[in-house]
Amino acid sequence: MNLILIDQHEVDNTTVTLTDRRCTHIRKVLRCQVGDEVRVGLVNGPVGRGCILALEAQRVMLDLILDQQQTPRPLTDLILALPRPIMLKRVLSQAVQLGVGRIFLINANRVEKSFFSASLLQNDSLQTFLRLGLEQAMDTRVPELSIHPRFRPFVEDVLPAITAPHPLKLVAHPTAAANLPQTCPLPLTGRVLIAIGPEGGWLDFEIERFQAQGFKPFSLGPRILRVDTAVPALLAQIDLLRSATTTRG
Amino acid sequence: MNLILIDQHEVDNTTVTLTDRRCTHIRKVLRCQVGDEVRVGLVNGPVGRGCILALEAQRVMLDLILDQQQTPRPLTDLILALPRPIMLKRVLSQAVQLGVGRIFLINANRVEKSFFSASLLQNDSLQTFLRLGLEQAMDTRVPELSIHPRFRPFVEDVLPAITAPHPLKLVAHPTAAANLPQTCPLPLTGRVLIAIGPEGGWLDFEIERFQAQGFKPFSLGPRILRVDTAVPALLAQIDLLRSATTTRG
Repeated sequence: MNLILIDQHEVDNTTVTLTDRRCTHIRKVLRCQVGDEVRVGLVNGPVGRGCILALEAQRVMLDLILDQQQTPRPLTDLILALPRPIMLKRVLSQAVQLGVGRIFLINANRVEKSFFSASLLQNDSLQTFLRLGLEQAMDTRVPELSIHPRFRPFVEDVLPAITAPHPLKLVAHPTAAANLPQTCPLPLTGRVLIAIGPEGGWLDFEIERFQAQGFKPFSLGPRILRVDTAVPALLAQIDLLRSATTTRG
Repeated sequence: MNLILIDQHEVDNTTVTLTDRRCTHIRKVLRCQVGDEVRVGLVNGPVGRGCILALEAQRVMLDLILDQQQTPRPLTDLILALPRPIMLKRVLSQAVQLGVGRIFLINANRVEKSFFSASLLQNDSLQTFLRLGLEQAMDTRVPELSIHPRFRPFVEDVLPAITAPHPLKLVAHPTAAANLPQTCPLPLTGRVLIAIGPEGGWLDFEIERFQAQGFKPFSLGPRILRVDTAVPALLAQIDLLRSATTTRG
């Protein structure tokens, strides 16, 4: 927890009282005293510092000075074939750590249907894992997350409505002929939408549906990656192509 | 398990009999029948296919045709401040999936000392996690792995003896001024040795010791990544710089 995330409704004037794991973190991990400052951020809002006004066993009170703007919205959006719940928790946190604007969890032929009835998806508990990623990355902007239990309506109805801001749309596919640098025209400056398939990959039919929506298939190479390796690998590569664009012209 | 890994000592002429989780995988996940073929590889040796000669509840016999050379040794080596055991298992598998030649698990000021006495490090169980990565990535080459419980002897005595093949040596450091593209001279063709610190980062003293050995510090940007995000992110970025070198000249 590199940043204490606070919801707007928790703030009373400029103070907030924490009684949950954030309180425990401030007391037990950061070992703060009254008068110390901790890094804080308002969910979907500015960041700054919280000065500790009071500290008790179950309760810490902070005075907030939120004087820094939140970071800009990340330029990459992620379509992810729904992985098994234990993997999903990890991958959501990883994606948020590296920065994504939107996350679409979708169905595909090789997604186990039971994953969509996992309790993890039934309430707001996914938000917990998004927040863990934000706390780690010191960001406050919660990605938009949506769940799409049917592949074809997602690709044919949802995608056309959301891809206007994306000059580059990519779909990872082990047997594609091109690799990522061959698929990304530099300079890479606009939004990128990237689709990552289930274990076992997309079906040819699914790749064709993505291609019909303007997605370019690319291969990560001959090594087959698990999703919790593939997601950070790809988001980091997109980031590198962006930074190479700005630092090398 | 995208590849069934077999040890040389298990092979009798051209056949092998499996009775462990590989047998279970062939029967329950791949649902093979007698006469079917599975992808197999010899540890640190060639890859090919295994034709199923016999299949019983607790036992499967394969006839091996190992007609493809193993992949070349990956060009990136990894120095990793020892993470907590549960994280280490995951990170080893991730690193192997992306491909590393050598892994050095080292101490640092912010590594919890208890991690070095974890049972995971006391016997060959780390090899299990390396193999899980190889099975996933369809590789057979086991990275060399060594454990270095003292920072200074590692940096001052071990490093000088091993870094001759590395034209590029990098150390990840959040406050470094340069980013990765600024630190990597292209074309990137030789071996790269990359050092990734503990949660909380390297101390300045530690960075100085690396710099004295020719390591260049670089920053991954303002977002702070957990090690199971940082390791795949960095290895993938190095891979991308290599492939950009070959595909764009």
